Amino acid sequence: MPHLINNTTKAVFYFYCTKVLLYNLNINSIIKRTNMKTETQKNMKELELSQAFKLIEPGPVVLLTTAHKGKMNVMTMSWHMDIDFTPIIACVVSEGDYSFEAIRKTKQCVIAIPTVDMMKKVVDIGNCSGADMDKFKKFNLTPLPAQKVSAPLIAECLANIECRVIDTRLVNKYNLFILEGVKVWIDPKRKERRTFHAGGDGTFTVDGRTVDLKKRMTKWKDVI
Amino acid sequence: MPHLINNTTKAVFYFYCTKVLLYNLNINSIIKRTNMKTETQKNMKELELSQAFKLIEPGPVVLLTTAHKGKMNVMTMSWHMDIDFTPIIACVVSEGDYSFEAIRKTKQCVIAIPTVDMMKKVVDIGNCSGADMDKFKKFNLTPLPAQKVSAPLIAECLANIECRVIDTRLVNKYNLFILEGVKVWIDPKRKERRTFHAGGDGTFTVDGRTVDLKKRMTKWKDVI
Repeated sequence: MPHLINNTTKAVFYFYCTKVLLYNLNINSIIKRTNMKTETQKNMKELELSQAFKLIEPGPVVLLTTAHKGKMNVMTMSWHMDIDFTPIIACVVSEGDYSFEAIRKTKQCVIAIPTVDMMKKVVDIGNCSGADMDKFKKFNLTPLPAQKVSAPLIAECLANIECRVIDTRLVNKYNLFILEGVKVWIDPKRKERRTFHAGGDGTFTVDGRTVDLKKRMTKWKDVI
Repeated sequence: MPHLINNTTKAVFYFYCTKVLLYNLNINSIIKRTNMKTETQKNMKELELSQAFKLIEPGPVVLLTTAHKGKMNVMTMSWHMDIDFTPIIACVVSEGDYSFEAIRKTKQCVIAIPTVDMMKKVVDIGNCSGADMDKFKKFNLTPLPAQKVSAPLIAECLANIECRVIDTRLVNKYNLFILEGVKVWIDPKRKERRTFHAGGDGTFTVDGRTVDLKKRMTKWKDVI
């Protein structure tokens, strides 16, 4: 009997120890989360989800980040498009890309929009593999915590779209992922806002002058 | 018996008449086809299929033509992307667009690449419907016969990609068509070659300077 009481006391003791430990872990994770949010919000301003399609529609070269098995990665991408205003975005991440497994398994990513001052760096990111290195470190990119996905935002970029994979029906045949944008961030302080476009032949075209034709957009008044 | 012979003679007579008629129709269609080819080849030069993805990758605003039930149509499109080099292209044609039924039923279309001198016209094409008018006539566009699809090329555009729909799995949910480019034409005489990009807000950005970064494209040497 004393032996039994002894065991019960031990069990109660371990139970409370575990509870206190879990409580502290939880507190820590809340503190970390709060800090993370603040850090992101210091650099980026939230943009309405309904505005995010405007970042993709012009067809700029973008960066795509992932986080998988404790490792972040970033790749350069120029095969992507809007498919709905909400926004829903389609993109191709090739099975040869190191990011392929990460996006397929985690079903999460961030699309970051770089500007012309980052052009050479962005091209270089697209000409090496995350399998061999930590690309954030190598290219001196600052990862910021996203709010709804595990993939990081990139502080140096003009904008970041947190995305979840919502349809994988065309992944096997075409490596085509359907993403839903769930949170969008933009850097309001950034002066350089011109993006650039891949020519597919190793040349890149920088945004030139912008022409305002809003008055002619009679059919699309509710969207623009 | 004379009655029977009479009927047989009639049958033979009608058989030969039909054969001669069909032969002439066939000849006419060959002649027409030859003329059509020549007319197209006068304006456009064939481009290797493997080069066509370079027309889509920069993300320019494009025109999409269809032909259905004896009527041609053209719409403006900025939601499209490469998904393979062969080329395979994804695009969104909304079910609200007059072209939707035509592309869905015929499984054929042409993607034409306009340049900056056509910008206002291209925007206006996107702000009216083929249900109400003949857009080729209204916008003074010259249709040229394609070689492998019934949809017309546009003589005024820099390039034209004849496409066949090869996958409709995502049409019902996202209006997303997967196209295979089967023939590509480019106008070698055209001086203006700058395209333009939709900002999604009624503004359009013209191609600026082009930067040659071929030397950095170490991973993509075989494609560019």
